[in-house]
Amino acid sequence: MSEQRISIIQNILSANDAIAENNRQLLKQARLFSINLMASPGAGKTTLIEQTIKNLTNELRILVIDGDIATTFDADRASAAGATAIQINTGGDCHLDAVMLNKALLQADLYQFDLLIVENVGNLVCPASFDLGTALNVLVASVPEGHDKPHKYPSMYRGVDYVILNKIDLLPYVDFDVEFFRKGLEALNPSVDLLLVSCRTGEGLSRWFQWLHKRINEYRTLLVE
Amino acid sequence: MSEQRISIIQNILSANDAIAENNRQLLKQARLFSINLMASPGAGKTTLIEQTIKNLTNELRILVIDGDIATTFDADRASAAGATAIQINTGGDCHLDAVMLNKALLQADLYQFDLLIVENVGNLVCPASFDLGTALNVLVASVPEGHDKPHKYPSMYRGVDYVILNKIDLLPYVDFDVEFFRKGLEALNPSVDLLLVSCRTGEGLSRWFQWLHKRINEYRTLLVE
Repeated sequence: MSEQRISIIQNILSANDAIAENNRQLLKQARLFSINLMASPGAGKTTLIEQTIKNLTNELRILVIDGDIATTFDADRASAAGATAIQINTGGDCHLDAVMLNKALLQADLYQFDLLIVENVGNLVCPASFDLGTALNVLVASVPEGHDKPHKYPSMYRGVDYVILNKIDLLPYVDFDVEFFRKGLEALNPSVDLLLVSCRTGEGLSRWFQWLHKRINEYRTLLVE
Repeated sequence: MSEQRISIIQNILSANDAIAENNRQLLKQARLFSINLMASPGAGKTTLIEQTIKNLTNELRILVIDGDIATTFDADRASAAGATAIQINTGGDCHLDAVMLNKALLQADLYQFDLLIVENVGNLVCPASFDLGTALNVLVASVPEGHDKPHKYPSMYRGVDYVILNKIDLLPYVDFDVEFFRKGLEALNPSVDLLLVSCRTGEGLSRWFQWLHKRINEYRTLLVE
């Protein structure tokens, strides 16, 4: 990689970090807890969001910001499930960045919500490099992807605060060693929690909902202190 | 995006294209038919390569060049299956580029092989922008990823010469509408062939092997003319 290219990439990342900090402050002012939800294409981010909206809509006011290269499919699904949804089309870019999120944040009254879910572009590589300014980073892995993914995508697995392993209803039909996956994850990210769920059957999701409630409370408590 | 950033990206892509052309000539000189195999993480590229090696090793001399961010897992699997394998670790980069492939090509006697399979980094976005200089681009999609992927990753689906839909053994257990997938693909890429397979059970793979033989023969015939 040329020195010029490295320098440009550093400039882009450092500009991104400044806007991410701005987003973090906007969200704090509105006391709005937020997660950056990342995954491979098709791991189940949108289905997890649908389930979250359907189950928590009476308890939490949820805002969803959906990042996709093209289409409004995901925002349409979040909206149909009962949340307020904003679509960002990246127009080819392989990840969301803090500037894109900033523009979306300015379209909503953040004070009207308890939980913001930012659905990143389906990609296990590039989104890991761009801080968005959300409170936490959550990764959705899925059983059919294979148990070797922490080893093969270390930046993503190292940088997240919570890992949800989805599609456990498919465990009988594919070769997936949960302990191998868990060890790969722990080697990179020893303190991270791993939750096994099936967004299709609903198995395990109650613990995800509890986790969200707990984190929202912690976030607000820290803001008061 | 700033003008400076656009200009840098254009420079990178144009330098890539020049090296890709160089790779194309190297492969032609050696009469070595080659494919650039792309997919999401976990769609089944490596299992397809293993099956291809095991089934064709008596008929074709196969070279595999594996691109990964980290680990040598995939090259190890290709090598264990009986092929000559070279690993490229991109060290964080989200795609292979023509320069990386060029370095790998110079490590092998290309005249000793009939088929080169380049396994790209698992990513449905970035690899689509980088021509490697291979004869054809092949995409492995998979049933658990969902039938909406052509709509959501149009650059990838538009730019490939052949699409293999893997993991059809999971069709009974997930919501996947093959016709919706096929229509999404045809809207972007009307002339592309779609093949349904299960690398796990072997279903459909004989047509993939026939396709490879046919393409290798066509490639060599065109070189003679």
